[in-house]
Amino acid sequence: MSDATKARKAALRKKLIELAEAQIAAEGLSSLRARGLAKEAGCAVGAIYTHFTDLDALVLEVNGRTFRRLGSSVAASVAAAADQPPRDRLIAMSHAYLHFAAEHAFLWRALFDVEMSADGPVPQWYLDALGGLFSYIAAPLAELFPDMPEHELDLLTRALFSSVHGIVLLGLEKRISGVPLAQIEQMIAQVLSRVQ
Amino acid sequence: MSDATKARKAALRKKLIELAEAQIAAEGLSSLRARGLAKEAGCAVGAIYTHFTDLDALVLEVNGRTFRRLGSSVAASVAAAADQPPRDRLIAMSHAYLHFAAEHAFLWRALFDVEMSADGPVPQWYLDALGGLFSYIAAPLAELFPDMPEHELDLLTRALFSSVHGIVLLGLEKRISGVPLAQIEQMIAQVLSRVQ
Repeated sequence: MSDATKARKAALRKKLIELAEAQIAAEGLSSLRARGLAKEAGCAVGAIYTHFTDLDALVLEVNGRTFRRLGSSVAASVAAAADQPPRDRLIAMSHAYLHFAAEHAFLWRALFDVEMSADGPVPQWYLDALGGLFSYIAAPLAELFPDMPEHELDLLTRALFSSVHGIVLLGLEKRISGVPLAQIEQMIAQVLSRVQ
Repeated sequence: MSDATKARKAALRKKLIELAEAQIAAEGLSSLRARGLAKEAGCAVGAIYTHFTDLDALVLEVNGRTFRRLGSSVAASVAAAADQPPRDRLIAMSHAYLHFAAEHAFLWRALFDVEMSADGPVPQWYLDALGGLFSYIAAPLAELFPDMPEHELDLLTRALFSSVHGIVLLGLEKRISGVPLAQIEQMIAQVLSRVQ
């Protein structure tokens, strides 16, 4: 393959990921279609499948980008709250999670929705990204509960991540619970500040 | 309309709801198609729309049935734990919620997934059913926190329902967190027993 062909292929691959990301961000994962994507990219539908096994594989690339942005956003909140007591840091990072989810609602949902429908193994980078989010929570929890056995701390980390995720998910689902962002923030703080 | 026609129409409506329920239970909400449903019911596709505005309206009927079964299941756990302290009752009903979700995974997910895609107003029975679930949680919480202002109690009720929902959702999502049921039970108990 000539360098020019390689560069053209790499450019199309990048373009497809960016177009898929824009489509998911605008109208959600379920609106993504190979035909529409090919049309926008100016390529044949078949060309998509020379770059990705299937649409799920393309969505996983988009999710990788989303996860990195989510990670940066949570990391920034952790850094900004570095001087605060562990409980306040937990609340600050959870609020950052909420705000990311609210601002990038469809991209954030795609992180979780694609996993349900796909059948293959979870890519390592996905598990690493999730592990990274868990470790932000585990650090302040270990300060709050210095005597807690590691196994229990792991479980509590997952449980609290899932709790915050549930509050964000149902909170943003306006038709079900219909609460403003400030109230979702309050619910998160209420649960996290009461865990003893 | 003759009585025979009325009875035939009512029978078809019931049959469509039952077939849709079986399809969602077996393969999930996203597998539901008007064409497949009509074929199974032995009617024209158009006949479906004389009974329901659209497929979402049919799914809402299925969800109504699911919500009633979920409600009965949680109510039974509350009744069985009536003599126990409030915190144990909270844990018992949350475990009942988990087991219902695990046994009827696709039907349970449809309760939440259809809401995202639909645009109309939420039916009153849906809000009532959700309110019913909330009231099971609010009662033991009011015993645990007798001095908590009502507004805060409402918020904590929603926050804890969402927390349990999040733990169940991500816990059952095997590809993401991959934990056995007993461990999901533990996570629920861990959070609920630590809320002070």
